[in-house]
Amino acid sequence: MASKGKREGREKESASALAEGVVAGDKRSLARAISKIERGDENLPALFSELYPRTGEAITIGFTGPPGVGKSSIIAKLIRLYRDEDKKVGVVSVDPSSPFTKGAILGDRIRLADHFLDKDVFIRSMGSRGHLGGLAAASRLAGMTMEAAGFDVILYETVGVGQGEVEVASAADTVVLCLQPGAGDAVQALKAGVMEVADVFCINKADHPQARGTAAEVRSILEIGHELDPDAPVPPIVLTRGDTGEGVAELEKAIEAHRGHLIETGGMERRRRASLRDFVISWATGRLEKEMEERLRGEDADVMERVYERRLDPIAASGKILRQA
Amino acid sequence: MASKGKREGREKESASALAEGVVAGDKRSLARAISKIERGDENLPALFSELYPRTGEAITIGFTGPPGVGKSSIIAKLIRLYRDEDKKVGVVSVDPSSPFTKGAILGDRIRLADHFLDKDVFIRSMGSRGHLGGLAAASRLAGMTMEAAGFDVILYETVGVGQGEVEVASAADTVVLCLQPGAGDAVQALKAGVMEVADVFCINKADHPQARGTAAEVRSILEIGHELDPDAPVPPIVLTRGDTGEGVAELEKAIEAHRGHLIETGGMERRRRASLRDFVISWATGRLEKEMEERLRGEDADVMERVYERRLDPIAASGKILRQA
Repeated sequence: MASKGKREGREKESASALAEGVVAGDKRSLARAISKIERGDENLPALFSELYPRTGEAITIGFTGPPGVGKSSIIAKLIRLYRDEDKKVGVVSVDPSSPFTKGAILGDRIRLADHFLDKDVFIRSMGSRGHLGGLAAASRLAGMTMEAAGFDVILYETVGVGQGEVEVASAADTVVLCLQPGAGDAVQALKAGVMEVADVFCINKADHPQARGTAAEVRSILEIGHELDPDAPVPPIVLTRGDTGEGVAELEKAIEAHRGHLIETGGMERRRRASLRDFVISWATGRLEKEMEERLRGEDADVMERVYERRLDPIAASGKILRQA
Repeated sequence: MASKGKREGREKESASALAEGVVAGDKRSLARAISKIERGDENLPALFSELYPRTGEAITIGFTGPPGVGKSSIIAKLIRLYRDEDKKVGVVSVDPSSPFTKGAILGDRIRLADHFLDKDVFIRSMGSRGHLGGLAAASRLAGMTMEAAGFDVILYETVGVGQGEVEVASAADTVVLCLQPGAGDAVQALKAGVMEVADVFCINKADHPQARGTAAEVRSILEIGHELDPDAPVPPIVLTRGDTGEGVAELEKAIEAHRGHLIETGGMERRRRASLRDFVISWATGRLEKEMEERLRGEDADVMERVYERRLDPIAASGKILRQA
């Protein structure tokens, strides 16, 4: 007991020391704290109880869209604008990765390389699996850790237009959906449910001959949505060029305007409350899932044996492990 | 109490009657049973305890791949082959849909129209949201219901290459990944983690000039995987034409060969056990999630209030609602 108490004391102290480093803006502390999130470290609760009160002030923006549209180039240009305003920028970049290897493919991180030497820009890639509470929860914790470290703007970047990407991006105050000119992209985004979470649309590669056509296509889809729900604002569509930076200042303005509208209408509070509730539930669910997995491998292995032999159906089996939870 | 007992008796009776209809192969009963799955009907546990013992004999195949590769055409041709062998075929078709509207977009269902009048083919589309335990669990229940109704082959078709689609397809004994000729598709599938769950690769549009190049690209990716894990078999790559049916017989043989290999090596049992365990856990998790959501809206609303006001951190909040679960 004494040694357990001592160990707990040490752990708490180390979490406190790390939290102190993060809050002081020490980048190594920040990196280590995010690694703890990725590992699901046992000190996370202690660490987070100290960091969380320091969060909630940052501008948070989710960037999503299919691979290859040039999100990283736009983000690189946007970071420059925020840096010109002397804002510190954190980027949580979520790469799709294997469900088995847990490895993140560092696709086009290279485009953000301009900012690697800027001490007021912090970029972190996260793999898409193996996180307690899911990737959206882990990304959110990483972003909040950056907030606690004093970053003014947090960008959540996801590659892809699946459900998981939507969840990551939707945790932000403003969601930007990036598309490129050409048929299909908008329709695919619509199918994946991304169109409905997007607050600002960005059509990149504005010099492409089909750019205006794609913008018109997106606009017509959005207008149908507006007819169905006249209270919902029609999101702005901004044409950009990631290579030259053209249109990126307009994009920043559109994001800022959305943010202003949210604050004015009380939408910000609703959105943040919903996002925190989602986090709490997915974190709790993740913990339970882990517990159940362990039990089914251990003491409750016979339950699965009976299911496999068709003596117990899987819905009844879930009830059994729940009652023991 | 008396009336509650009576109602429970009636419900049980109605679940029994429905199960009887399903097992007798009545299509209306089958359709109603799957609707109960989609709605998360309260009779589901009673219904399923009767259906489950009748499952486990069917050949189950997961079909996944990006939109537009021609999966539905291949599936339509494959169904014809199974029908020639006098096998009854059930199709669970998972359409990507909005996270908010719950509606399924019935994309290319039309290609399966040939089989709509065949009483030994049953096709059911499922939307991708609002299912207790997630879409993979709901699709699995739908497939098992078809198994109980006497279908010999169950095809799980998903559109897209996200994590969700991987989960749906992986519940099957054999996973077929369909790609089309041209750069990018294979790499995107790799990024999404689909390559690693695929047992058989199908490059459709075999008449396309880049078809063999794409097959070679996939083969080289697979060989890298094989070098990393020499015990894993290298999945076969089959070139098909959905329009003419060319190569679909080879695809069927490759699926059968994979199945034979699984049975021989004991891989089938391992795979089915893992898949049932995943189902049980996600079903239990889904129930808990629903309970927690209700509680956070009701009796535990103050917990979220404190989180929102930064007086309680979200990890601690998740611990609080768990202890009350």
